[in-house]
Amino acid sequence: MLNEWTKGDRPESEELEKRLDEARAKLAAKQIEIKEKKLPVLVVLEGWGAAGKGSVLGKIIRNLDPRFFKVAVMEEATAEEKRKPFLYRHFVKIPAAGQLVFFEGGWMDEVTGDYLSGRLKKKEYKNRINSIKRFERQLTDNGYLVMKFFFHIGRKEQKKRMDMLLSDKNTKWRVSKKDIRQNEDYDECRKVFDGYLEETNQPNAPWYLISSVDKKWAELQMLELLLSGIDTALMNFSKAVPVLQNTFPVKPIPKLADIPLADKTMTDEAYRLELKACQRRLRELHNEIYRRKIPVIIAYEGWDAAGKGGNIKRIASALDPRGYEVHPIASPEPHEKARHYLWRFWNRLPKDGHIAIFDRTWYGRVMVERLEGFCSENDWQRAYYEINEFEKELADWGAIVVKFWVQIDKDTQLERFTLRQNTPEKQWKITDEDWRNREKWDLYEDAINEMLEKTNTSYAPWYVLESNDKKYARIKALKTVIAEIEKRL
Amino acid sequence: MLNEWTKGDRPESEELEKRLDEARAKLAAKQIEIKEKKLPVLVVLEGWGAAGKGSVLGKIIRNLDPRFFKVAVMEEATAEEKRKPFLYRHFVKIPAAGQLVFFEGGWMDEVTGDYLSGRLKKKEYKNRINSIKRFERQLTDNGYLVMKFFFHIGRKEQKKRMDMLLSDKNTKWRVSKKDIRQNEDYDECRKVFDGYLEETNQPNAPWYLISSVDKKWAELQMLELLLSGIDTALMNFSKAVPVLQNTFPVKPIPKLADIPLADKTMTDEAYRLELKACQRRLRELHNEIYRRKIPVIIAYEGWDAAGKGGNIKRIASALDPRGYEVHPIASPEPHEKARHYLWRFWNRLPKDGHIAIFDRTWYGRVMVERLEGFCSENDWQRAYYEINEFEKELADWGAIVVKFWVQIDKDTQLERFTLRQNTPEKQWKITDEDWRNREKWDLYEDAINEMLEKTNTSYAPWYVLESNDKKYARIKALKTVIAEIEKRL
Repeated sequence: MLNEWTKGDRPESEELEKRLDEARAKLAAKQIEIKEKKLPVLVVLEGWGAAGKGSVLGKIIRNLDPRFFKVAVMEEATAEEKRKPFLYRHFVKIPAAGQLVFFEGGWMDEVTGDYLSGRLKKKEYKNRINSIKRFERQLTDNGYLVMKFFFHIGRKEQKKRMDMLLSDKNTKWRVSKKDIRQNEDYDECRKVFDGYLEETNQPNAPWYLISSVDKKWAELQMLELLLSGIDTALMNFSKAVPVLQNTFPVKPIPKLADIPLADKTMTDEAYRLELKACQRRLRELHNEIYRRKIPVIIAYEGWDAAGKGGNIKRIASALDPRGYEVHPIASPEPHEKARHYLWRFWNRLPKDGHIAIFDRTWYGRVMVERLEGFCSENDWQRAYYEINEFEKELADWGAIVVKFWVQIDKDTQLERFTLRQNTPEKQWKITDEDWRNREKWDLYEDAINEMLEKTNTSYAPWYVLESNDKKYARIKALKTVIAEIEKRL
Repeated sequence: MLNEWTKGDRPESEELEKRLDEARAKLAAKQIEIKEKKLPVLVVLEGWGAAGKGSVLGKIIRNLDPRFFKVAVMEEATAEEKRKPFLYRHFVKIPAAGQLVFFEGGWMDEVTGDYLSGRLKKKEYKNRINSIKRFERQLTDNGYLVMKFFFHIGRKEQKKRMDMLLSDKNTKWRVSKKDIRQNEDYDECRKVFDGYLEETNQPNAPWYLISSVDKKWAELQMLELLLSGIDTALMNFSKAVPVLQNTFPVKPIPKLADIPLADKTMTDEAYRLELKACQRRLRELHNEIYRRKIPVIIAYEGWDAAGKGGNIKRIASALDPRGYEVHPIASPEPHEKARHYLWRFWNRLPKDGHIAIFDRTWYGRVMVERLEGFCSENDWQRAYYEINEFEKELADWGAIVVKFWVQIDKDTQLERFTLRQNTPEKQWKITDEDWRNREKWDLYEDAINEMLEKTNTSYAPWYVLESNDKKYARIKALKTVIAEIEKRL
C-alpha cells in the first residue's frame, strides 16, 4: 500500500484554511447527529513514531463536545492485560452508541511491534491478523463505524523530527527507544507495516494513509476523511447486514428430543462416592492449570429449574476461591446494551490460570433475545457465526472452553415448578416469567436445537447434562470438566 | 488452511446413504425455491488434478432440473480471452437470477497455475488476488450466493489415481501434463494453494475443503454444505448490504454550476483546422495503440441534447473501423437485468489494442436508475465504490479509461429541444421522456455532482466537455483522448 500510494496535493494556504474551517465546523455538527442516531464511532490512529498523530488528534478533538468522545492511549500492555486474549484490552474500550473513541495507537502497533521484535512468530502473527479482521468486521457488522488512519513520513523526516525533540530537555521524553529503533530499521519496519496495511485493508474498515509532513494538511486530510466516513456510516445505520457462511468446524449433535433421560440416574450412594472423588481430582487439576496458566471457561445454559445452580455449586465448591469466579448473567445494563452484545463477556474473561463459570451466557442472543424480540432477526441469525468467532478467540488464546446444556423434560420442569410454588422457602425461585417461558417451550426447543447444531465447534463443544436426576447431571459435569482439563495437560 | 483442517469423520455406510438420499431430495426442492426467489447461485469447484471434482459434480447435477443450471468448464483461456481483463471470461459466465452455475475449475486454477509456471510475478499475483476478492464481494453484495469448494487428496493418492487412469487407453486423456507436473511438485503446489485459500477465505465467500478420498463421502460433504449455504443466502436475500468506505484515490472536481460555459467557444475556421489536425493525430495514435495492444475505453455521459452523438462521430470518424466499436447503451434487456448490473459492460469490453466508445455507460446506475427508482437507494449508494472497482480492473489490465461529461446549461437545452421540435427532420430526436427528464434537471444535477465527486479517480478521471458550443466540445474531446494516449506511449 505504501508503495502505490500518492499523497495528493496540499492545497494553497488560503484554500487549506478555508477547508479546515469548513471541516471543523462540519465535524462539530456531525457529532450531534452521531449522538442522536446513536452511532458508535471507533477511530484508530497509527503510524510512524514522531509522525504527529498526537498533535493532529489534539487539534481534531478541540472541535468536539467532551461528553461524547474519549481518547484511548494504548501504551504497552500491562502485566494484567497480558494474561487475557490480546484483543481484550482493545475490545473493552470500544465506544458506546452515540460516542466516538479515538485510539492513539492500537492493535496494529501492538502486533507489528511484537512481530518485529520476534515476540510473535510468523504463524502466530498471521493468526493475529485473522483475529483482527474478524474483530473489525464484527464491529462494523454490528453498526460500528471503524476508521483507521496511518500517519506516514519518510525516514529522513522522522530522523529530523526525533533529533529536534531529543535536543530539547522538555521534549526529549517524547522519543521512545522503540521510535529510535524504528528509524534505524526503517526499511524493515516499512515492509512489515506495508504487509499489515494490505492484509487488513478491508473496505468495511479500510486504511487511510495520511501524508504527515505538514501538520495542517494532515489535520485536513483526517477531518475530511472522517466526515466522509461518518456520512457513509449514517447511511448504513440500522440496516441489516448479510448473515455469513460458517467457516468453523462444526460437529453433529443430536436433537434434544432424541436424548434419552429416563435411564440417566444415579443412586445416592454412588453419587456420594463419585462426588467426593471427582471434587478431589478437580481440586488437584485446578492447581495444575493455575501453575500452567491455562484459562478455563465453563458456560452453563439450560431450562428453568433444570438444576444449573446446584450443578455449578458442585463444581465451584471443589475450587480454590482465589482462582475462580462465577458470573450470573441477567439482562444487560444500559451501558452494556449500548455496546456490542459480546462486550460484557469480554469484560468478564478470567485471567490465565483462572476459571470463569458463566451461569447463562452469550447464548442469550440466540435464545431469549431471539424469542422475545430483543434483537432483530438479522442480529440473532448473524450471532451464531459471531459466537463461533468469539469462542475461537478464547481457544486461540489457549482457553479450555466447556459448554453445558442442562436438559430436563417438560414434565420434570412442571414438577419442580409446582414444588417451588408449594414450598414457602422456595417460592422466591419461581416467578410469573418462568411460567410464561414455559408456555413457549416448543419455540425454545427449536431455538436450542438450532443453537446446538450451529455452535458445536470442535474447539468449544457442547455437552448435554441429562438432569432429570440432578445427581447424574452433577457427576457428568464434573467428569466432563476433569476430562477436558486432563486432555490439555 | 490445509494444515489446520481436520477432514471430519466419514459416517458409516448406512448412515451415509441415508444422509445422501435426504440431501439429494432437499437440493431438488431447494432448486425450486432458488428459482422462485430469483437467487443467483455461483458454485466453484477447485482442487487437485484427479481429485474427482468432475465425478462429484456429475452426481450432484443429476438431482437438478437442467433448465435452471449450467456447468462452466474452465479450460485454458483462449487467445481471444487473453486479450481481455483476466476476470472477463469468469464474469461473463455468472448466473442469472434463479439459476445455478457450477464452475469446474475457476479463477483459482487459472491464477495459481499462472503463478506456479512463472507467467505471473509475485506482485501481479497479489494484485489478481485483490481483484478476485473484490469480484467475489461484488457478487455477494449484489445478492449472489458464492460457494467455493476445494477437493483435497494427498500426493500418494493422487499418484495412484493418475497411474490408474494412465494405464487404460480409454481414460488416459483425462490426465493432463499439468496434473503430472502438479504431482511432481506437490509440496510447492500445496504451499501456493494454501496461501491462495487463506487469502481468499472471506466469510461472504468462504472456502470449503472437501476430503475427496471417498467419492460418496465427498458428494455428501458438498451437498450438505451447499444446502446450508443456500439457506444462508435465502435468509439474506434482498436485504440491504452496507455501503463501503471508498479506498481508491479520488481527485477534487468542480461542481457543474461552477464550470464556466460562455467563454468556451470556437470560430468555424479554427474548428475546421483543429479538427483536421486532431483527427490526423488520432489516426496515427490508433495505429500505435493497436500495435502495442493497449485497450482504450471512452465513456460518454451528458445532458440530453448536449451533443454526445456528434461528438462521438468526430472521434469515430478518425478511427479505422476494424479497430473500434461504439456501444449505445439503452435500458437493460431482461437477460441483462437478471444479472449483476455491470455484467453487460463486462460483455462489451474491447480486445486489447481496440477502442470501445460507450454512448451512455454504467453510470446509469447512479443517475437514471437512482432517480427513477429502478434500483434501491442501497444499490446506487453502493455503486460508486463498485464502479471505482470496475474501472480499477480496467486500469490494471492496462486500459486507458477516459470519461466525458458533456455539459450544457438549461437554456441551451431548451433551445435545442425547441429546434428539434420545430424541425420536421429532427423531430424523431425529441420525445416526451426528454421533456420529463428536463423537469428533473435539478435532481439530476445533484446526482451528477455526487457522481463526479465520488468517481473522479486518478486512474479513470472525468473530463467535462463544455458543449454550449459543440465545436469547442468536440475539439476538447479529441485533444483529451490524444493527450491520454500520448501520456501512455
